[in-house]
Amino acid sequence: MDKLEELKPIFYPKTLAVIGASADERKFGGGFLRSLQEFGFKGKIYPVNPQGTEIFGLKMYPSARDIPEPVDLAHIMVPARVVPNVLEDCVAKGVKGAQIFTSGFTETGEEEGRRLEDELVRIARKGIRLIGPNCFGVYCPASGLTLLPGYDFPKESGPVAFLSQSGGYAAEFSREAKGLGIRFSKVISYGNACDLNEADFMEYLAQDPETKIITAYMEGPKAGRQFMRLVQEVSKTKPVIIWKAGLTKAGARAVSSHTGSLSGEEAAWDALFKQSGAIRVKSLEELIDTTVAFLHLPPTTGRRVAVCGGGGGISVAAADACEQVGLSVPSFAAEIREQLRQILPPAGTSIRNPVDFGAPILPPVIIEKMLEIAASVKNIDTIIATQALHYILSGKLSFLFDTSGSFVQDSVQAPVNIKRRFGKPVIMVLPIGSDEVEMIDAERGRREIQAIYLNEGIPVYPTLERAARAVANVIAYYEKEVEIQ
Amino acid sequence: MDKLEELKPIFYPKTLAVIGASADERKFGGGFLRSLQEFGFKGKIYPVNPQGTEIFGLKMYPSARDIPEPVDLAHIMVPARVVPNVLEDCVAKGVKGAQIFTSGFTETGEEEGRRLEDELVRIARKGIRLIGPNCFGVYCPASGLTLLPGYDFPKESGPVAFLSQSGGYAAEFSREAKGLGIRFSKVISYGNACDLNEADFMEYLAQDPETKIITAYMEGPKAGRQFMRLVQEVSKTKPVIIWKAGLTKAGARAVSSHTGSLSGEEAAWDALFKQSGAIRVKSLEELIDTTVAFLHLPPTTGRRVAVCGGGGGISVAAADACEQVGLSVPSFAAEIREQLRQILPPAGTSIRNPVDFGAPILPPVIIEKMLEIAASVKNIDTIIATQALHYILSGKLSFLFDTSGSFVQDSVQAPVNIKRRFGKPVIMVLPIGSDEVEMIDAERGRREIQAIYLNEGIPVYPTLERAARAVANVIAYYEKEVEIQ
Repeated sequence: MDKLEELKPIFYPKTLAVIGASADERKFGGGFLRSLQEFGFKGKIYPVNPQGTEIFGLKMYPSARDIPEPVDLAHIMVPARVVPNVLEDCVAKGVKGAQIFTSGFTETGEEEGRRLEDELVRIARKGIRLIGPNCFGVYCPASGLTLLPGYDFPKESGPVAFLSQSGGYAAEFSREAKGLGIRFSKVISYGNACDLNEADFMEYLAQDPETKIITAYMEGPKAGRQFMRLVQEVSKTKPVIIWKAGLTKAGARAVSSHTGSLSGEEAAWDALFKQSGAIRVKSLEELIDTTVAFLHLPPTTGRRVAVCGGGGGISVAAADACEQVGLSVPSFAAEIREQLRQILPPAGTSIRNPVDFGAPILPPVIIEKMLEIAASVKNIDTIIATQALHYILSGKLSFLFDTSGSFVQDSVQAPVNIKRRFGKPVIMVLPIGSDEVEMIDAERGRREIQAIYLNEGIPVYPTLERAARAVANVIAYYEKEVEIQ
Repeated sequence: MDKLEELKPIFYPKTLAVIGASADERKFGGGFLRSLQEFGFKGKIYPVNPQGTEIFGLKMYPSARDIPEPVDLAHIMVPARVVPNVLEDCVAKGVKGAQIFTSGFTETGEEEGRRLEDELVRIARKGIRLIGPNCFGVYCPASGLTLLPGYDFPKESGPVAFLSQSGGYAAEFSREAKGLGIRFSKVISYGNACDLNEADFMEYLAQDPETKIITAYMEGPKAGRQFMRLVQEVSKTKPVIIWKAGLTKAGARAVSSHTGSLSGEEAAWDALFKQSGAIRVKSLEELIDTTVAFLHLPPTTGRRVAVCGGGGGISVAAADACEQVGLSVPSFAAEIREQLRQILPPAGTSIRNPVDFGAPILPPVIIEKMLEIAASVKNIDTIIATQALHYILSGKLSFLFDTSGSFVQDSVQAPVNIKRRFGKPVIMVLPIGSDEVEMIDAERGRREIQAIYLNEGIPVYPTLERAARAVANVIAYYEKEVEIQ
């Protein structure tokens, strides 16, 4: 059966039973219902609870069996020992899918939990597909499904899917995405994966026309080989970014008590990653950074970078950071150096690439000219530029630089102009600088500028190390793709 | 000669000649003078410039020779070709030390620059010690010396010294330090190191009673072996944290055009680090993180950590992050798990260590009880706890949790109480969360809470990876110390 068709009732339910609904918003059963309503679920919600008659303006039903119309999806949040009964009701009702929020199954490491989970699998075979247990379920802006506590997640859809064995990370990424311009097709927190597992979801996302970039946080796979075969296939058309956690001893133990799975051996995963076209990342930070890079960087992004920044050792660290991830920082020819010498201050300036313009701040017209010279170099594919605008935004250095008028706007416009004129990718580094309370306005300004750049298709990172790593991940993917085809 | 005595006029000048002073604040010669005055230099300033008679209320002198009293230190910011003449004037005047801001010497890679720098060395032999050229010089709160543009650097002294071949990083660290409670004895930007070099400064800092923790950013050493011998010696009493940059090919090239030095081979540095007791770090971020850890963590900080946090995969990543840097996360005994089971929510909770309490937020009384149980475990040396208070500070989840009243204050008090009661080190992770503009108030709150923890001797980091790495650096130092002695 076509995966898109098969899982459609789960991702785009027209009717949703919330089993274990509660009038108390501080309980999961109430908080979830409120989150769904606030977020704007597009279908019809049927709260189910043997106690009560109405909740948040919705009629309550004692059991799924009593719901007067067909039900696509059930969200189950009753205590673990009650889940099998409730699930039997769903099967009797003909509910097509269920996401089981409840935990207390295999991940407890106890016999009772394992037995209960086996029972869920047995019931599921009668004709219902399960997500979880021990999961947050699905966030899908197009259908209005959201996670607890995602009432304020972005309402717009986007090209990114996140497949997460952790509910915490599913919520965290969805929330962090807001400020970074990342929008989702689907976020799936799938927990213990007793029925539908990572391979099912990967197959779905491969086919899903809404999804262009697939990201995943995995602990222990249920169908590892099948999953990696799918990854290998889908990687040819969609980048797949995977964070595999739990590869240390303590990590593996934590995996077992978190989602009741086996995390596997580091060596086996290394081999799988090498065979597939997947991009491997080592933290949520790198996963998000790499997603931002994929959203904006074209397949033509190349390893030969020009790095432009201001202030001392920054050029040395920049060169180190680039080379360590396999980017190259080619030395500029004498003729290019001469052009840079004409416009940059004579003192404390390096003009070989990295270009270090000595001061943290330069007039926008010089910045633009400098970027123009760098972008015009034939053997440069990609521009990475640092902008220490937080100095200006904080009102610091005001007696050192005439930063009045449109200084900040023009400084932000310069890289935008260069990207448009040369068609070469531009990546910006906007350092956070001091994180003292008094500098909060500088941080607000930095976030505003970040939003402008992202809107112009320019990825932004707080450090050069993070920028270089994310860019290198994108390049490695497109290189591998060429190799495979 | 005793280094403390020898360099006293440089670090604690009673009289300072600013050679190349300017009435234009936007020029280096004016900006530096303004910065010094605003910061509150404690000695007497003599601006020197053949043009002009007065500047910012100070009488101007045409040459150092014309200054009517003995001069301890000269700060030189005239064009490179004029520096030798000006330095001859200083020698004639009997000035004891000079920090040469001017660049355009060996780091240009050109014959003329090299020749000029050789001349400086020749002149210095007549009886003046030099810092630089191509440097920012000294920031020393006790004497009121500051870097350009450091008019707003912390005025209080502290136990940390920073020896930096980059002026940019010297300024950056000094500024970032503010919000992190790091205070300095001396920050030294020493650039090309044509006379006084890293070994001289290390010798000074070893003897300096104000300095308890030594940090360094190095590109190319002038006296590498001597420096490392000193490091080996001083490490026995003061931690020495070193970031050696320029170890990649592009990095080495950048070093040569930044401070005109040779950066050396990765392998040679590896060996030197192994032999010395120095703590090696790989970025400014890690250098600062490690400094914060050394400021607050006692020598008894041990590798066996309890990790407590909320929300899913966080426990797995936490375990991975700890093990990857050599910390261990011992599984709790059944009896401890039982105690935790009594107080934590049944659903989605891991109680083995890492303790994952399932939700990002728990009532403060539960948090404190949980930390108490963890801290009371005999084979646990150190506590690392994550607090997702940004959810509350942002006003998010307000319908899910009753966070009114003193919820936040009590949540912050809990780890403070545990640290006091058990005397075991506590490290907090306060994630930044979403960096969208609308969440800026959450960030302000996070910074306020960070300040409270730092004030209580509790190091704070935005990610668990960074926390684990910094803590591991501290532990490795004290372990090595024991080995050496």
